[in-house]
Amino acid sequence: MAGAQGSALAIAVSRAGGLGSLPCAMLEPEAMRAELAAIRAATDRPFNVNFFCHAQPAADADREAGWRAALAPYYREYGIDPQDIPAAPGRLPFSAAAAEVLDAVRPPVVSFHFGLPEAALRARVRALGALILATATTVDEALWLERHGVDAIVAQGWEAGGHRGHFLSDDLLLQPGTLALVPQVVRAVRVPVIAAGGIADAAGVRAVLALGAVAAQVGTAYLLCPEATTHPAHRAALVGPMAQRTAVTNLYTGRPARGIENRLMREIGPLSPLAPAFPLATAALAPLRTAALKDGKADFMPLWCGQNASGCRPVPAAELTHGLAGV
Amino acid sequence: MAGAQGSALAIAVSRAGGLGSLPCAMLEPEAMRAELAAIRAATDRPFNVNFFCHAQPAADADREAGWRAALAPYYREYGIDPQDIPAAPGRLPFSAAAAEVLDAVRPPVVSFHFGLPEAALRARVRALGALILATATTVDEALWLERHGVDAIVAQGWEAGGHRGHFLSDDLLLQPGTLALVPQVVRAVRVPVIAAGGIADAAGVRAVLALGAVAAQVGTAYLLCPEATTHPAHRAALVGPMAQRTAVTNLYTGRPARGIENRLMREIGPLSPLAPAFPLATAALAPLRTAALKDGKADFMPLWCGQNASGCRPVPAAELTHGLAGV
Repeated sequence: MAGAQGSALAIAVSRAGGLGSLPCAMLEPEAMRAELAAIRAATDRPFNVNFFCHAQPAADADREAGWRAALAPYYREYGIDPQDIPAAPGRLPFSAAAAEVLDAVRPPVVSFHFGLPEAALRARVRALGALILATATTVDEALWLERHGVDAIVAQGWEAGGHRGHFLSDDLLLQPGTLALVPQVVRAVRVPVIAAGGIADAAGVRAVLALGAVAAQVGTAYLLCPEATTHPAHRAALVGPMAQRTAVTNLYTGRPARGIENRLMREIGPLSPLAPAFPLATAALAPLRTAALKDGKADFMPLWCGQNASGCRPVPAAELTHGLAGV
Repeated sequence: MAGAQGSALAIAVSRAGGLGSLPCAMLEPEAMRAELAAIRAATDRPFNVNFFCHAQPAADADREAGWRAALAPYYREYGIDPQDIPAAPGRLPFSAAAAEVLDAVRPPVVSFHFGLPEAALRARVRALGALILATATTVDEALWLERHGVDAIVAQGWEAGGHRGHFLSDDLLLQPGTLALVPQVVRAVRVPVIAAGGIADAAGVRAVLALGAVAAQVGTAYLLCPEATTHPAHRAALVGPMAQRTAVTNLYTGRPARGIENRLMREIGPLSPLAPAFPLATAALAPLRTAALKDGKADFMPLWCGQNASGCRPVPAAELTHGLAGV
């Protein structure tokens, strides 16, 4: 949910009895500190702090040039000089600086996407006393995470919106839908399993509990809540017919993530070998995103969304959380 | 399940309290008559008779030539002269001849895949007094089927093995996973919904009931049963690590269907615009299938399988059925 929410949504969900989560992949330490302080000030309920933990790749000038060449027709259309586009980090991995922020906050739960950080950083999180969660997209990844000491596993099915959490293999054929993945993970590991992907209402929550999950992780359904920071163009797409057509794409960041198919995905194809390594693909698209939005077009921005947008409603997060819990 | 089962599996499932099904897409009327007689003789429990209802396409010599050109390296490898390969129907749609067989048998349930047959044929089935089921892969297809008078809808999620049942659009991006699809279909229609795709054990059945389905349709889990006619090479693939890597492919028949990725799918890519229209793609592969199997290789045969092969066990179908029902 990085880019679509901050502390306000996390606070509202935690107050409503869910486990609110603060995504930190797009927050520098100072912003993270402020957001966490806001949560601590607003609630004493449990909350989660979520991090990506990819290795930052070295810049690759040739690959970047190839990617910008693929985007050249769009730069021409919008009168953008690709030489003027600055490199930008896009997404930040968990780091010593982030761990230092956590030292002061001591969050009750910390979750990781794309595997786990290196051992020294893991030990720092462990020393906080936080429960550690991490995402698995296959049984093999679940077993790996269990061996590396996580307290619970988020089993992310193919329906899920946003970034796929895979880290042992980037072979997308290995990644099953939620209904197929969750019971296999539940059988394979002893730690609790949290199901994610395609869950949008109380029936979906009951279904994953029937599969043996202890909880459900819900993202897409919250994107219309007033507490979310979802861009208006993204909100519009979520309530329209476009939201029925999602695809896993690597164009926006360099890693596969599910979003509503828009012009860039349609014209280049959702998965391209030309996209730079995660998260470096982000920079080249930034000016196109901005220019198209001036025309009211969400053609070059990621519209993250799972395969079930039917739960998206512009209601307070507390109401949505109570509905998901069936109370 | 056409090609992997006949009356024996249908009988065993119906006797065990499930709704056994006879797939007729690969049966000429005489064979169908014999299989249905066997079912009637063995049980008075309800059973289902399943049909494809595609329109048979006209042969397209150019497209066939292009497809055989793509397969030329394989023909050379196995010393096959593509000129010698006869055209073959591959799969048969529901027809007046099939309806005539049903007139005599009066099956309690008839199900259709790829939409519904034309109105006159539908009326003949309706006149039998049979319940009519049909597959939907989207909410739009479910609404269409309800308007056209089906008694129940099989909501087929993306996880499902074998042919995708879509018929209003061949846009695969529209087709969600089971957990996302089923609750949306349940909300959209008033007729009962049967869930299919990724269901392999009692937990999966309970999960789809929690989603609002009235029943679960299970295919893959039965493929190892002694009553199934699954090819030994297919059985071997289902119990090996290959079964974790499935893809939706149109190479084997011309229509997208989920199977275990094998050599043909890997080397050509699972979806190719070169494959002739369904079911004409079948013929060109038949001699390759046979030749490779002589070397013990399942490189050119469809290994239909859903995304959850973990329920496949070489046990009698009655035991599997009781297990799925949680009894």
